Amino acid sequence: MSAQTTVAARVKKAPVAMHGVDTPHLLATINAVGAQPALGKFQFRAKSRWISGTHSRSTMSGFFGAGGEHQHKSRFEAEADHPAVLCGADNAPLPVEWVLHALASCLTSGIANIAAARGVPLKKVEATVQGDIDLRGILGLSKEVRNGYQAIKVSFVIDGDAPPEQLAAIVEQSKARSAVFDIVTKGVPVSIGVETGA
Amino acid sequence: MSAQTTVAARVKKAPVAMHGVDTPHLLATINAVGAQPALGKFQFRAKSRWISGTHSRSTMSGFFGAGGEHQHKSRFEAEADHPAVLCGADNAPLPVEWVLHALASCLTSGIANIAAARGVPLKKVEATVQGDIDLRGILGLSKEVRNGYQAIKVSFVIDGDAPPEQLAAIVEQSKARSAVFDIVTKGVPVSIGVETGA
Repeated sequence: MSAQTTVAARVKKAPVAMHGVDTPHLLATINAVGAQPALGKFQFRAKSRWISGTHSRSTMSGFFGAGGEHQHKSRFEAEADHPAVLCGADNAPLPVEWVLHALASCLTSGIANIAAARGVPLKKVEATVQGDIDLRGILGLSKEVRNGYQAIKVSFVIDGDAPPEQLAAIVEQSKARSAVFDIVTKGVPVSIGVETGA
Repeated sequence: MSAQTTVAARVKKAPVAMHGVDTPHLLATINAVGAQPALGKFQFRAKSRWISGTHSRSTMSGFFGAGGEHQHKSRFEAEADHPAVLCGADNAPLPVEWVLHALASCLTSGIANIAAARGVPLKKVEATVQGDIDLRGILGLSKEVRNGYQAIKVSFVIDGDAPPEQLAAIVEQSKARSAVFDIVTKGVPVSIGVETGA
């Protein structure tokens, strides 16, 4: 029996909202996309503008999905910069730190959703994420050293109304269904276009 | 002649600070890591805490590098959430949007540094990043559909005191040296540990 079947089987018993997850809505969404796969096509976007040095600001506001355009409740903005030791003004987290935030938050939201679908109320989910990188890559000092992280380690502390094995299985299922875990571990084709001028 | 050699050759002429990049400091950093490779070993970290539903908050404060521990100027915090159409409260950008911010900001900081090293003052760098994703993956509705983005497209508009080919070559070199571009296109091994309890 697949993990997905397990979730569906449990869920049929009693989809109950818990710990901030509207479980009936979540299940209805899965069923809606199952019935009409085109609803599952999404496009997310960020618009970024250079400020000065290594400092930039991105805006995330609109996205496409479920058959139409959407706007976030707020127009979200975020910055990035390098710290002083990497010749920046340290106005914001580094781009590579944002990757760690993306990974932790994706796994955590999955844990909350899956726990709710399995009827397990959670009390605490904390994650520490560490990424090891050798800057000889990006500094162009070695052809053997990659530019990105060599390894990332995520350590969860999780508490909820279920035995440890069941909590660990929820984390495992989140990993199996996480968009950012998939992006970061398997890679995505990225195309870059350039237009020049004022 | 490699791109790296080209940069070094140009830089020897006159490393001049411009558009917020302290070019002499940047070059000195590259030389320092070249002379003492252990200085290039860095570890970045994020600590994340679940709030409710799909909403979580990360903190990025300390990191290791250049032979010692560092603290950011500020203790940076960032949130993530799902929008209403994905059963969240839309308190913050989605984890997958944070990946786009990380990618845009990494390429942009590289562009600014490389332009300074090549003596090209920049006037504008803007990027639009789009990521296409089919949610049948993360919703467990199809084994053929991946969880993460199927493709990401980055569109730069760049203006500076150089001909279009030179500006395009700066973007190309940033791509060749970007940590996040490398992470997102090639993937990174991620290990996940779980501790349960209060």
